[in-house]
Amino acid sequence: MAKPSLPPGTRDFSAEVVRKRNFLFNTIRSVFECYGFGPLETPAMEQLDTLLGKYGEEGDKLIFKILNNGLDHPDKEQKTRDALEQVLKGKNSKDLTERALRYDLTIPFARYVATWHQQLTLPFKRYQMQPVWRADRPQRGRYREFYQCDVDVVGSRSLLNELELGCICHHIFTRLGLPDYSLRINHRQLLVALAARCGDASQLVTITTAIDKLDKVGIEKVKEELANKNLSAAQIDLIEAYLNIGGSLPQQVEQLRALLGQRPEAIAALEELQQLIEDLQQQQVHVLLDPTLARGLNYYTGTIFEIKAPARVNMGSLGGGGRYDDLTGLFGVPGLPGVGLSFGVDRIYDVLEELQLFPHDSTMGTQVLFFNLGADESRAAFVQLQGLRERGLAAELYPESVKFDKQFKYAEKRNFTYIAIIGKEEMAKQQVNVKNIRSGEQRTCSWKELATLSFTW
Amino acid sequence: MAKPSLPPGTRDFSAEVVRKRNFLFNTIRSVFECYGFGPLETPAMEQLDTLLGKYGEEGDKLIFKILNNGLDHPDKEQKTRDALEQVLKGKNSKDLTERALRYDLTIPFARYVATWHQQLTLPFKRYQMQPVWRADRPQRGRYREFYQCDVDVVGSRSLLNELELGCICHHIFTRLGLPDYSLRINHRQLLVALAARCGDASQLVTITTAIDKLDKVGIEKVKEELANKNLSAAQIDLIEAYLNIGGSLPQQVEQLRALLGQRPEAIAALEELQQLIEDLQQQQVHVLLDPTLARGLNYYTGTIFEIKAPARVNMGSLGGGGRYDDLTGLFGVPGLPGVGLSFGVDRIYDVLEELQLFPHDSTMGTQVLFFNLGADESRAAFVQLQGLRERGLAAELYPESVKFDKQFKYAEKRNFTYIAIIGKEEMAKQQVNVKNIRSGEQRTCSWKELATLSFTW
Repeated sequence: MAKPSLPPGTRDFSAEVVRKRNFLFNTIRSVFECYGFGPLETPAMEQLDTLLGKYGEEGDKLIFKILNNGLDHPDKEQKTRDALEQVLKGKNSKDLTERALRYDLTIPFARYVATWHQQLTLPFKRYQMQPVWRADRPQRGRYREFYQCDVDVVGSRSLLNELELGCICHHIFTRLGLPDYSLRINHRQLLVALAARCGDASQLVTITTAIDKLDKVGIEKVKEELANKNLSAAQIDLIEAYLNIGGSLPQQVEQLRALLGQRPEAIAALEELQQLIEDLQQQQVHVLLDPTLARGLNYYTGTIFEIKAPARVNMGSLGGGGRYDDLTGLFGVPGLPGVGLSFGVDRIYDVLEELQLFPHDSTMGTQVLFFNLGADESRAAFVQLQGLRERGLAAELYPESVKFDKQFKYAEKRNFTYIAIIGKEEMAKQQVNVKNIRSGEQRTCSWKELATLSFTW
Repeated sequence: MAKPSLPPGTRDFSAEVVRKRNFLFNTIRSVFECYGFGPLETPAMEQLDTLLGKYGEEGDKLIFKILNNGLDHPDKEQKTRDALEQVLKGKNSKDLTERALRYDLTIPFARYVATWHQQLTLPFKRYQMQPVWRADRPQRGRYREFYQCDVDVVGSRSLLNELELGCICHHIFTRLGLPDYSLRINHRQLLVALAARCGDASQLVTITTAIDKLDKVGIEKVKEELANKNLSAAQIDLIEAYLNIGGSLPQQVEQLRALLGQRPEAIAALEELQQLIEDLQQQQVHVLLDPTLARGLNYYTGTIFEIKAPARVNMGSLGGGGRYDDLTGLFGVPGLPGVGLSFGVDRIYDVLEELQLFPHDSTMGTQVLFFNLGADESRAAFVQLQGLRERGLAAELYPESVKFDKQFKYAEKRNFTYIAIIGKEEMAKQQVNVKNIRSGEQRTCSWKELATLSFTW
């Protein structure tokens, strides 16, 4: 049989990578827990109905659907054929597929809250770190299976939640050794006011969608897109004036007030932003007001966030989020507001890797390898080995009594720090030879001494 | 829209359950790491080819297959129709489905080893704790998404590996508070010898399949099944004699020798078992020789294991495993032997829950809730809150200044131990009132004292 392959866009994670990823996940998790968020895990599969229509037309096409089982049952044949006709027309049919793989963590969270809202204690603070699947065309840095890491609080309109999310961001990146992250912040109601000032509130989506691309395509292309969407020159001028707002925070606020100050939603949004930015700065959060920040997703209604990687790496966004008015309305439970942040853990991983910020001990596997020098010797070694393990040390005995060289190569390849040798001579003296194979330092100690020997030299 | 539902056989895990599960996973993981095993993670989806034909005809039907994306592309229409005809006949077609969800952890592991064997350092010691998916009919205790937790070493024939797996089992169950587990052990070559003694080595699978059901159905049903499979009365008598072997270990060995001692594979197997059991007992492992242990899976060739739950719970098997000669032959890489153990984490979870063995702090969420008594008060409280978080304590501030009662109910429902109150009076005195709402004990301390206050009273 031919060598088996992996599905395109998916990855195996070896021990070293899993350990680094766990270091990253554990760091993030411990900050979430510290801020009073609790974990939630939802199934990999959801009912197709739950997911369809939530991610736009393009999104729907990228959902991995699961084939129903038992399609070869004769009673189902006609239904299955009819179902296929639907699928060929680009529609879905429950007779062929009823379930699909999680596409993000927001919709499963909304489904969970809608199902359990009567039992949940509000405000409900949850985090979720699980893989999602998307049938995107695989390319460098874009996978069909990747992790998302979301933190949300629902059932509270207090700005304190935004403040805490900013602090969480600061804590996480500081702990990871990336204190030069920046948190950009804006308010959806400024964009609502901008659309209103353009004289057409219904253009909000057109405007935010175009602005959202500014970083990638530049101002001329944004203007082009707006013109193609039939915005007038006057409207485009107004939007350009908005996008050109800059300077210090007070200067930005002044310009925004001048441009949008007639609109009550802009006044309220600016007050919120000023308060929040002041509070965040008091907590040392590296926050910047960025009127050009738009966030593509349309369910945001209040503050929006984007986490930018340090300038020293070429990475861009490491996460983002914002406030929404209505998490669960789509599932028949209206009026639950919330705010959340999503961390792009695969990208953060790449940044930590590029800057070599994973601490040495996050990747450390087993520390001590006992050599196997024969039946009696390995028996004696095993007793000592179990002693080390009882102390919580990760240690091994080479399972076979093969040539010294082979065992030494194993020690090197597996990246052991110490080798421990009990040969005939050491057995007679109840001793063990321990060597740090990185430094070359060697120690001979009695079995009794080994029981308390530290492995930090 | 109607309330969304979960796919049958799948579960949401709330914070309390995730925390308990993580306690269990972390306990197991730390023992694996201590014994020199490293983590591996494989994708949720595999190529359908990789999985099909590995789990028997019944297994194949229970694999969740993923519908190819883009089936509505006009160029693919005929291919898709043809593919459906195959599926209706119970066959598979890549034009409809190319990928499937992981069904167990063994085949993805074998696929991984077959792919990377030239780069891997042998012996290769890996553990894997990931969900698997099976389209089984859901019922109490049987889910369509559940975790498996496997530990294997490949590339070594040494019996030391079996010894270490037994020790791992002992360490895990002792740490979990289940020291009265038992590890049953047998050897596939005894069953091979038994089939040979019956005069028909080709009956091995028939005999092991029947014996495997002994615990569930009793001896009479086993004999019935054997008779139905055309075994003679003399053959069945021999098998019954084998199954009746009992007494102390030396007595068991003596009877096995009497029954199977003509067969060289039985002699070798008995020697291995005696050596292994002696070594395991020296390590305090609760091991029993159980000739009736058969293990359904046919790839085992040497020692086989089953972990039994303590008699005080009605649970049965908590895991099992064994030695195999050829992990990756199916994928074109022959000659890689190994031995592994699989822990039934969902069942172990249920046992720990039934016996209330989850330590209190494994389920503990946030500890301290600051009440929100107004804008200025909450600002003062936030400063104190951040101080506690800097110390690593999990703490919260109620986000809105609502009635005291509502905040107190939140504290109770969310299971906080302490509430901290900074009202007008406390602000003036730079104090905080801390109360243990379980014991009722109350303390008033200065903000400075709070910075070092322990929360263990």
